[in-house]
Amino acid sequence: MSTETEAPVVVSVDLGARSYDIVIGPAILGSAGVEIARRIPGTRAAIVTDANVAAAHLRTLRDALSAAGIGHEVVTIAPGEKSKSFATLQDTVDAILAARLERGDTVIALGGGVVGDLAGFAAAIVRRGMNFVQAPTSLLAQVDSSVGGKTGINTGHGKNLVGVFHQPRLVLADTAALDTLPPREFRAGYAEMAKYGLIDRPEFFAWLENNWKDIFAGGAARVEAIARSCRAKADVVARDEHEVGDRALLNLGHTFGHALEAATCYDSARLVHGEGVAIGMALAHRFSARLNLASPDDAERVEAHLREVGLPTRLSDVPGGLPDAEALLAYIAQDKKVARGALTFILTRGIGQAFIAKDVPISQVLSFLEENLAP
Amino acid sequence: MSTETEAPVVVSVDLGARSYDIVIGPAILGSAGVEIARRIPGTRAAIVTDANVAAAHLRTLRDALSAAGIGHEVVTIAPGEKSKSFATLQDTVDAILAARLERGDTVIALGGGVVGDLAGFAAAIVRRGMNFVQAPTSLLAQVDSSVGGKTGINTGHGKNLVGVFHQPRLVLADTAALDTLPPREFRAGYAEMAKYGLIDRPEFFAWLENNWKDIFAGGAARVEAIARSCRAKADVVARDEHEVGDRALLNLGHTFGHALEAATCYDSARLVHGEGVAIGMALAHRFSARLNLASPDDAERVEAHLREVGLPTRLSDVPGGLPDAEALLAYIAQDKKVARGALTFILTRGIGQAFIAKDVPISQVLSFLEENLAP
Repeated sequence: MSTETEAPVVVSVDLGARSYDIVIGPAILGSAGVEIARRIPGTRAAIVTDANVAAAHLRTLRDALSAAGIGHEVVTIAPGEKSKSFATLQDTVDAILAARLERGDTVIALGGGVVGDLAGFAAAIVRRGMNFVQAPTSLLAQVDSSVGGKTGINTGHGKNLVGVFHQPRLVLADTAALDTLPPREFRAGYAEMAKYGLIDRPEFFAWLENNWKDIFAGGAARVEAIARSCRAKADVVARDEHEVGDRALLNLGHTFGHALEAATCYDSARLVHGEGVAIGMALAHRFSARLNLASPDDAERVEAHLREVGLPTRLSDVPGGLPDAEALLAYIAQDKKVARGALTFILTRGIGQAFIAKDVPISQVLSFLEENLAP
Repeated sequence: MSTETEAPVVVSVDLGARSYDIVIGPAILGSAGVEIARRIPGTRAAIVTDANVAAAHLRTLRDALSAAGIGHEVVTIAPGEKSKSFATLQDTVDAILAARLERGDTVIALGGGVVGDLAGFAAAIVRRGMNFVQAPTSLLAQVDSSVGGKTGINTGHGKNLVGVFHQPRLVLADTAALDTLPPREFRAGYAEMAKYGLIDRPEFFAWLENNWKDIFAGGAARVEAIARSCRAKADVVARDEHEVGDRALLNLGHTFGHALEAATCYDSARLVHGEGVAIGMALAHRFSARLNLASPDDAERVEAHLREVGLPTRLSDVPGGLPDAEALLAYIAQDKKVARGALTFILTRGIGQAFIAKDVPISQVLSFLEENLAP
């Protein structure tokens, strides 16, 4: 991976016949038509996007497709997590069918995680599977949700409980598109980036500690950081595409994080996903120290770095208060990483040494939560 | 395959890690608990069924599950094709989530093709994929829709345009359950059975010509005929799971058939799927003879056998009249087996010699339809 030039960096996800490239670089959206036509000759496309992203980036993508001779329609959904619903899924599916797209045609997701998860699910189920291309425009989507094939929607029973695995044919991560992100949203994506270091790449976490300002400022370190994150995720996905084993490591910080998102009613004014993950990762490290699995020094180092970039790390950082420990535990138990009633957590032996802990005693989770909720 | 005893016959579908058994026999539903527990130890289950099937077979299945210690909930949908909708899918998904089933648990479809297609789709998307078991109670479902992993629902744009491939872990075909089927529905399933002979097993078609009465009467030939049909389908599915090639042969009779179903508004009082397929197969053979690909004698032999068992074979057999040739062609073009604007048909060089014909000229289809619509 070069950080010397503006040439795009390509990270390959190795999944046999379903392998694909993640092409990362500033202004890569302007090359979308060429990149897609090279991989899916003769395709037509449906762009799924939301109104906010459309205002900033749709023109660029449409021009790029037209220049490459790719006929296309646009499906615009409402911005926000509420669009990850059966109703919006049905609308999107109907719009794709109304455009008379065929099995060999392509759905392009232009936007953040919500657009990607919804559009990918629609691509997976129209005609039992169309081609899918991700053009993520948020940092979270570029380093996490656009890679690995998870798609889905939310239901009243919880987030992402309905969906399928459907790998994209191509991911186009335009790093310049991140310049327009609100700082809070950029930070939230950064939490997932730090996660890869914490799972099994301690040298990457150390590099982030030294380079985070350049990443936020949009310097050469940004492309490198995104590429290294995608490489980390691609390696895990290639090992365990359908999350029957190792892939669960990517849930570091997510079991606590999802519970906090649920407890705040997915109200992004209070907590966004990456913030939940940041608190969750800090808690996972503290919990591991509490269980004498890891040194408290590592937990403090993790917390210090996350706080330095402006991320929350404590339950008391969640504005508006939280329910009690029992209620938080109930949210954790409804999370989909529950196997046969036992609680599964991603714990750690130190920075870069995360592991899957099955059968974590509920009583210990409960008392840990009680301690952390205490004023 | 034995026809001498009442012991169940097992047909294996070879799909590597996703291989599964089709267990065929009278009263096999009474062994469902044992068969499932052996393959998916510790599972809990949601039975998806419709009110009609529940009245006839739900007690048997529930008792079998309980005897094997499999805790379960029941989700009952309205009988009929209208249940293959987004609304019923959402209700079914919600019911499975409300039962707090986990990823390792099982959705069991007890019913015909509608229940199987809907329940399989729900199983595929809840928690990105639960275990799925088919307990087909119609002949059509036993010899066709329960095998091969196609799941889906209908939309205003057409039938089965939304869905995924999700292979079952087990298929339990209770041949005695067919005793309660209305004769018209049994005949409709028989059309799919005859299809396997017409595709590439001329000796099976000849055997059906000699044994159909025993199959209808429920004799030993019934189990054998269902097993041979499942074997035929399993072979095609194993070669081409996701229908990128050979599997399209299974659409023999279906391109015309789907158009007729659409033209009659999926009104089962006028035409059920298997009847559409019977007419479609007769048309495909006549069309092939008309194109000088096959002998007209074969087309006559196919028509004679289908008429002998009581199936329709001509456009004029559809009660209530049909739209004109142009309109039928439009239904054909919306069918999902259209690739890049060219019409793809399954044609034949004679009984047991079907092949995939791409780029069939629209003008020839149109004039053939006009001839067949003429009084």
